[in-house]
Amino acid sequence: MRLSQLGEFGLIEAIARTTPKGSGVRIGIGDDAAWVSHPRQSSLITSDLLIEGIHFDLRWTTMFDLGYKTLAVNLSDIAAMGGISAYLMLSLGIPSHFDSKKIAEFYRGIHSLAARSGVTLIGGDTNIAPLFLACACVIGHPSKHPLTRSGAKTGDDIYVTGTLGDAALALQILQSKSKRAHGKTIGQLMQRHHRPTARLTAGSILAEKRVASAMIDISDGLIQDLGHICKASGVGAEISADDIPLSSAYRAVAGKDDLRYALSGGEDYELLFCAPHSHRDDIEKLQRRAKVSITRIGRCVASRAGISVIAASGKPIALDAPGHDHFKKSANNARRRRSA
Amino acid sequence: MRLSQLGEFGLIEAIARTTPKGSGVRIGIGDDAAWVSHPRQSSLITSDLLIEGIHFDLRWTTMFDLGYKTLAVNLSDIAAMGGISAYLMLSLGIPSHFDSKKIAEFYRGIHSLAARSGVTLIGGDTNIAPLFLACACVIGHPSKHPLTRSGAKTGDDIYVTGTLGDAALALQILQSKSKRAHGKTIGQLMQRHHRPTARLTAGSILAEKRVASAMIDISDGLIQDLGHICKASGVGAEISADDIPLSSAYRAVAGKDDLRYALSGGEDYELLFCAPHSHRDDIEKLQRRAKVSITRIGRCVASRAGISVIAASGKPIALDAPGHDHFKKSANNARRRRSA
Repeated sequence: MRLSQLGEFGLIEAIARTTPKGSGVRIGIGDDAAWVSHPRQSSLITSDLLIEGIHFDLRWTTMFDLGYKTLAVNLSDIAAMGGISAYLMLSLGIPSHFDSKKIAEFYRGIHSLAARSGVTLIGGDTNIAPLFLACACVIGHPSKHPLTRSGAKTGDDIYVTGTLGDAALALQILQSKSKRAHGKTIGQLMQRHHRPTARLTAGSILAEKRVASAMIDISDGLIQDLGHICKASGVGAEISADDIPLSSAYRAVAGKDDLRYALSGGEDYELLFCAPHSHRDDIEKLQRRAKVSITRIGRCVASRAGISVIAASGKPIALDAPGHDHFKKSANNARRRRSA
Repeated sequence: MRLSQLGEFGLIEAIARTTPKGSGVRIGIGDDAAWVSHPRQSSLITSDLLIEGIHFDLRWTTMFDLGYKTLAVNLSDIAAMGGISAYLMLSLGIPSHFDSKKIAEFYRGIHSLAARSGVTLIGGDTNIAPLFLACACVIGHPSKHPLTRSGAKTGDDIYVTGTLGDAALALQILQSKSKRAHGKTIGQLMQRHHRPTARLTAGSILAEKRVASAMIDISDGLIQDLGHICKASGVGAEISADDIPLSSAYRAVAGKDDLRYALSGGEDYELLFCAPHSHRDDIEKLQRRAKVSITRIGRCVASRAGISVIAASGKPIALDAPGHDHFKKSANNARRRRSA
């Protein structure tokens, strides 16, 4: 049905009907505000805005995947503080020519991830707009000691979860339309691009066990996001190029020596964290519980040394495009403008 | 400075620098998520999305007023539940050609209202976009007994705060460019359109004293929003046309008999609530404490009677365009498409 027939309130009713009642929700969709519980008397709150033509391209992104990703990128922020995501406020701008089926598909993507992450949709705002856009706000429960970007110390090890660069490489393939050239391998990269996995369990254990000293999720590229930790913590960082974890698909398509996507591609939604040397064993063990690989990729050095990536030869790799900045114009940004 | 020079992180730093540290904020702008306190172990959460060309027109709306209004419309939702607003998450889409001064002006509007409402900006997301858009999420502290739309009973009185129709009438004037025709009076209407007053104190007292049975804020027009209370409460409503409070400016410009703007114009951000007959004295007294006039405009009737507005003659007034629906096409909607 066209949205102009269904109407705003018809749409809201349809959304409310398909939204499961979640724990902690005292009043959900359908009043002026939602009313929710916070066991710890405090909450973590994050927000991400995704805009058609800037963050995603509906030529190659399904509405289901877009819903999934809209939630995933927010979950990743809560995970990066070591919290547990609980509630989702979702505001949409919808072109008037959209069919309500498209919107239902978007919400199916949302609910698919929400259900497995223990998150409940509690409200939002629906509007017509000249393009599709989604603004999500996720509210989570903090661990006893939320992990910020500012606790890293000189000498700390630097780790990442999972593998880097897959999503950015997938985007490059989508944009260059060279999809068929690589056959099967592509599927793994596309999955990483369309349905990123927020590292919920790893984030929460790292905060709960107090093994990490600082943490961030990699959304704008390893080097850029590492820069945020370095700046907030007052340290520098030395990364070993050979230790950066790459997927087999990445190696097959880009080759293990092309680190551009892994260093500055962005949209990995992996956790990047620092931890004292003495926690190496704990982190080793943590991988099994969190069901994700964790790789030590470098160490924190004095602030004045800045950030460097050292090749196996011992020489530093030039870093001219550190990662994504939404306003600055660069080759790297131009590539990333359409990203979902 | 152009945003393309300042960059995303330069902008975020500038926003953080000009944001006062608020009470209850453990971690504000600058990490993956904000961390805030909730004295009652629960919170009220609302979100509103404002899009250029749909909700506002920058030909007649200043960035300061737009910032002010972006916050005001969210505060109004929290007030309508009887809560106290505390935190603001704000995500923006910004055209790349915007100068950073424009954005600073928008934040000045935000902070101007935030300061006097006890609200702190705690984070958000900044992106480039083909048009300007602002998505706000306000988190508030609930009263002991949040006021929903669903508690009205047959026989309850119906009240509104302030006066109705001013903002919609102002918009009509802006759109028809007949501004000069009415001289001084216009200023009062424009003020109501550009800087709506969320009824924070009235909302909070009404919930705290438990005098109201149901409440909503009027954003889409009296009849439409009354419809939400009626539907949620299972009642009908009879409104006395003569009792609808109109400002002197409204009377001077539209005339007291033209109730279109007051009935279905929208963007009043006044509170509409129901209360048992026995609370009339309490509500009378409450006006002074809340510093806003409160007018009894009708009563709740049986659900099957629906909503009617009765003229002084005793005859019902025809209601063909009840109020704003973001997706349905109607004369009323067409008029309201550009609204700030």
